[in-house]
Amino acid sequence: MRAYSIGVDLGGTNLRAAAIDEEGQILERYSIATSNYHGSSDAIVGDIVGLIREVRGRVKKATLRGVGIGVPGYIEIEAGIIVAAANLPFTDFPIRDEIQQQLGIPIILENDANAAALGEYWMGAGRGVDNLMLLTLGTGIGGGIIIDGKVLHGFAGMAGEVGHMTVYPDGNPCGCGNQGCLEKHASATAIAGMARMMGLGSNDVTAADVHEMAMAGNAKAQQVFECMGRSLGIAIATLINLFNFPLYLLSGGPLPAWDMFAPAMLAEVKRRSYTYSRTATKIEKATLGGDAGLFGAAYLPFQYEQNAAHEIRSTSGIQ
Amino acid sequence: MRAYSIGVDLGGTNLRAAAIDEEGQILERYSIATSNYHGSSDAIVGDIVGLIREVRGRVKKATLRGVGIGVPGYIEIEAGIIVAAANLPFTDFPIRDEIQQQLGIPIILENDANAAALGEYWMGAGRGVDNLMLLTLGTGIGGGIIIDGKVLHGFAGMAGEVGHMTVYPDGNPCGCGNQGCLEKHASATAIAGMARMMGLGSNDVTAADVHEMAMAGNAKAQQVFECMGRSLGIAIATLINLFNFPLYLLSGGPLPAWDMFAPAMLAEVKRRSYTYSRTATKIEKATLGGDAGLFGAAYLPFQYEQNAAHEIRSTSGIQ
Repeated sequence: MRAYSIGVDLGGTNLRAAAIDEEGQILERYSIATSNYHGSSDAIVGDIVGLIREVRGRVKKATLRGVGIGVPGYIEIEAGIIVAAANLPFTDFPIRDEIQQQLGIPIILENDANAAALGEYWMGAGRGVDNLMLLTLGTGIGGGIIIDGKVLHGFAGMAGEVGHMTVYPDGNPCGCGNQGCLEKHASATAIAGMARMMGLGSNDVTAADVHEMAMAGNAKAQQVFECMGRSLGIAIATLINLFNFPLYLLSGGPLPAWDMFAPAMLAEVKRRSYTYSRTATKIEKATLGGDAGLFGAAYLPFQYEQNAAHEIRSTSGIQ
Repeated sequence: MRAYSIGVDLGGTNLRAAAIDEEGQILERYSIATSNYHGSSDAIVGDIVGLIREVRGRVKKATLRGVGIGVPGYIEIEAGIIVAAANLPFTDFPIRDEIQQQLGIPIILENDANAAALGEYWMGAGRGVDNLMLLTLGTGIGGGIIIDGKVLHGFAGMAGEVGHMTVYPDGNPCGCGNQGCLEKHASATAIAGMARMMGLGSNDVTAADVHEMAMAGNAKAQQVFECMGRSLGIAIATLINLFNFPLYLLSGGPLPAWDMFAPAMLAEVKRRSYTYSRTATKIEKATLGGDAGLFGAAYLPFQYEQNAAHEIRSTSGIQ
């Protein structure tokens, strides 16, 4: 029987889940609004369990291998705990065991940006590229690093905090305590912030509005994207020098404005990256959009099985 | 019979080699001046072969497993080629096969900074720490990244170019074409350069001289180390945010001045690193000094055997 897994994305406004088979085909998908986000952790666990049951119930003639969950926050993967999460009422919360007990299915957690990078590696712009990085440009900037087909977690699961790379040592202040973090100069929020400083649009101006103005020939709006692209290029040049990966992917709200920011970005990358010119480094748009995290989360149980199988083979070989 | 390997370091002023056993004991060591560096590639290959023969001849009652060579330059590891090297007359030169043919021993190449990082992991300050980074502060700044006990090479063998991270987008010019590279603000050369700008000492002033002045209470010399430490801290904070490793090691000429630059360095790291405060990240002095590269080079044949054995076990397990 066909095998599938369920990927869950604990997003900012919706809880989403998709049943995806081993070939990356979406069998079923479902989402619910996150009305419980300001409620109790029990209520939201109930929502997640209900969501998974709903998707599982819709899939016919296939075996469920497990559930992967992408979490927007700081998690301890091996313990299955959400330490802290943005917009979610979880602190040091053993979410994996809570859900596993109610469903009787193996659950694997992953950081949402890491899950998105894994999704792009599995079924998106990074197919067949074992070493890559994904930068997600949104309210902040998230990052996921894939080395030899696996997420680089670091020793506390906090690797890939690309958004907090220092780009300008005396740049804009960041909530993390630093100044000049990449996300304060190149996220969707930063684009809107720079536009407001330039007197563009209302106080509610968005990155999409600024893009529209730039397309219509507004020089100030174009300048905003040039600054944003420059900051992004400085950071990506450093990433290239450090990792020497063949592929760096970008996703998120500002991507439709690629033509506005990419020339400045690429000029900085070429100038500042020691290794770029010697190698065939590519910087490209991610292709799975908002579904990358669902794909990556769904891939987790499959990848876990592959690794387990490899372990078993290694061990039995010694005998 | 006891097994050993030979590590070779193609250094700036000397060719050095050491026979080291599997426990990390140095059995024999030998070095020769690099008088041939401005001569032909054949002459220097002859020197390297002679050096290895000399060390091999001195070792009694032990089996040679292979030779590792740390190269100060850009190499293609799988092809065994030196593409370009600092101070060595090699361009696209198949050094591995040349030496292997003359000696009949397996030869493995590695970048010298990577070899030093591997050495510190095997027998130095990084023993037992599977994920770490070494920054070597010298004429430039080199870097080696160890993930799960192995060197991160990147797809063209050029990962770990820490010295060319952009620290100040409008900082000092660098020969690589960039501005504000870490090595133009925190290497031994940078310390001497900043001191000269401050009117300290003669035109021949060295980082060691500046250290002496700082120790004697010279405020300008102290300021140089403060700036150097600050630049280093900005870079290490970004490394911590990206890799979330438990350990970052520093080595090289300026290390004796640790007390002069470390306070500024650590202050920047704490302020700018998103993950530092949440985790037990350590920044420490490397312990093998100039021998780190020899140890790392000698470890290469042992590591190759371990990986090969693992491959064989995996494969035989499938049957």
